[in-house]
Amino acid sequence: MTDITVAAVQQPCGKDKAANLAATEQLIHQASDQGAELVVLQELHTTPYFCQTQDTAVFDLAESLQGPTRQRLAALAKELKLVIVGSIFERRMAGVFHNTALVLDADGSLAGLYRKMHIPDDPGFYEKFYFTPGDALTDQPLGGFSPIDTAVGRLGVLVCWDQWYPEAARLMALAGAQILIYPTAIGWDPADPDSEKQRQQDAWITVQRGHAIANNLPLIAANRIGHEASPDPTAGGIDFWGNSFICGPQGEMLVQANDRDPGAILARINPDRTDQLRRIWPYLRDRRIDAYQDLIRRVRDNHS
Amino acid sequence: MTDITVAAVQQPCGKDKAANLAATEQLIHQASDQGAELVVLQELHTTPYFCQTQDTAVFDLAESLQGPTRQRLAALAKELKLVIVGSIFERRMAGVFHNTALVLDADGSLAGLYRKMHIPDDPGFYEKFYFTPGDALTDQPLGGFSPIDTAVGRLGVLVCWDQWYPEAARLMALAGAQILIYPTAIGWDPADPDSEKQRQQDAWITVQRGHAIANNLPLIAANRIGHEASPDPTAGGIDFWGNSFICGPQGEMLVQANDRDPGAILARINPDRTDQLRRIWPYLRDRRIDAYQDLIRRVRDNHS
Repeated sequence: MTDITVAAVQQPCGKDKAANLAATEQLIHQASDQGAELVVLQELHTTPYFCQTQDTAVFDLAESLQGPTRQRLAALAKELKLVIVGSIFERRMAGVFHNTALVLDADGSLAGLYRKMHIPDDPGFYEKFYFTPGDALTDQPLGGFSPIDTAVGRLGVLVCWDQWYPEAARLMALAGAQILIYPTAIGWDPADPDSEKQRQQDAWITVQRGHAIANNLPLIAANRIGHEASPDPTAGGIDFWGNSFICGPQGEMLVQANDRDPGAILARINPDRTDQLRRIWPYLRDRRIDAYQDLIRRVRDNHS
Repeated sequence: MTDITVAAVQQPCGKDKAANLAATEQLIHQASDQGAELVVLQELHTTPYFCQTQDTAVFDLAESLQGPTRQRLAALAKELKLVIVGSIFERRMAGVFHNTALVLDADGSLAGLYRKMHIPDDPGFYEKFYFTPGDALTDQPLGGFSPIDTAVGRLGVLVCWDQWYPEAARLMALAGAQILIYPTAIGWDPADPDSEKQRQQDAWITVQRGHAIANNLPLIAANRIGHEASPDPTAGGIDFWGNSFICGPQGEMLVQANDRDPGAILARINPDRTDQLRRIWPYLRDRRIDAYQDLIRRVRDNHS
């Protein structure tokens, strides 16, 4: 396979959905001008991160798989002949909403979708209130962790909290994913000391580089930027830390954004490197599948 | 729980087993003098790394679980009242040899053992010739990936190639391991360019820090140093890259050795940090055990 040029976009988001999407489109155009064949957008890029509180009115923000965000991204993918990984707050039916990544192929068709499987829930990130955990589509015999075939290869699309789960990356790799992709919205509690902020950000980058390494796969992470105040006046809001990055299949950093500037970062990826690496670092060869059965247990607590 | 002081020892190894062990004992004494309650030794610390070629005579180096290395480490553990994680080439019976980590408790008793589960095999690392893959002991209902209880806590001991497998670290964490521990023998092919050497070493450190992060656990890795020539005159030998390190449960580096100096590195670990971290970064809470069943498959290849 030939090299492909991939991009991650990071941006701040305000309350005006149309303005957010317009800014996104401009950044996708920039990436395309620089040769991008695949553009990854951040999680929930059309809205502020609305999970800082639990508010039933927020469900009005959701849209269907046929909604305006999909239509605009599809038109742009077709116009620019590139693959776009977008993100929507999906209304599947009354009472069933998802945090969904949409993959628009280079011809504008919907190549596939991924509904966030691991849902976080902690102060300021009340996602379990909004998002039903992902499941398998009827045309996905492999279940919720199914990669998506596109013009630039088979994409292992996961979302944000999934980043902390080696299981998710491994399942995508075992299904033939060629690139791991993470749209994200993660940030700091402004009240935390700088040392804690640094540890959190380093951990976020490191654990994902670890997935790239353990699976010999390149990885793209797109994260939002900007301070977003909380609707709860007693809460300090979130400083989204950006640092979108692209690393290679040995976890080597290819390009990394900073924690404040909007923009598109780009890198060249050679899909053949995975094949070469797996010849000399053949982790998949030696997995002890005879001894992994307890990975589907909650806790291995029969030991004493 | 109170803080504990832990150490990793790295050293070069020559052909004289007694001299290697004497050097190890001196470094354990040094660590003890600085307050170490747990000392982790590198993989196969009594011998050169003998897997650079396949040679039936090498099996003579193996010893039983009751052998001299266990006896000497046990005596030292008892004398210094500390826990030692050692490593032997174990002869279990004719035709069944293992790469085995021995855990000597602070009273000199054998707290437990771990037989390397993932066995590598590549040019210069012909381990599948020598080591039968680990299995479960009859008193280990949890199987081969069983942590070991000691005076300083429950230790998740794994060995070298296991480092590349998130499954192994996760299984130890799910069984209540409080520290992840990796005795190691990894190095560079001297013929590789510096850029490749750097990527390999970074990957080795990063993937392990990733295990610490994903499981909210501190981690100790001990690796050998020194150039060891290959018995095969056409091979360039191995430059073992040292860089033994200890990181905290957010993957934060606490102490790291260089790639050439023998010695003991020490750090303080607070076991309560794992409990606190898991309250606010509760990865184990949200694992999708309903969707992980394919982790026990070799490849998820029914997709097309």
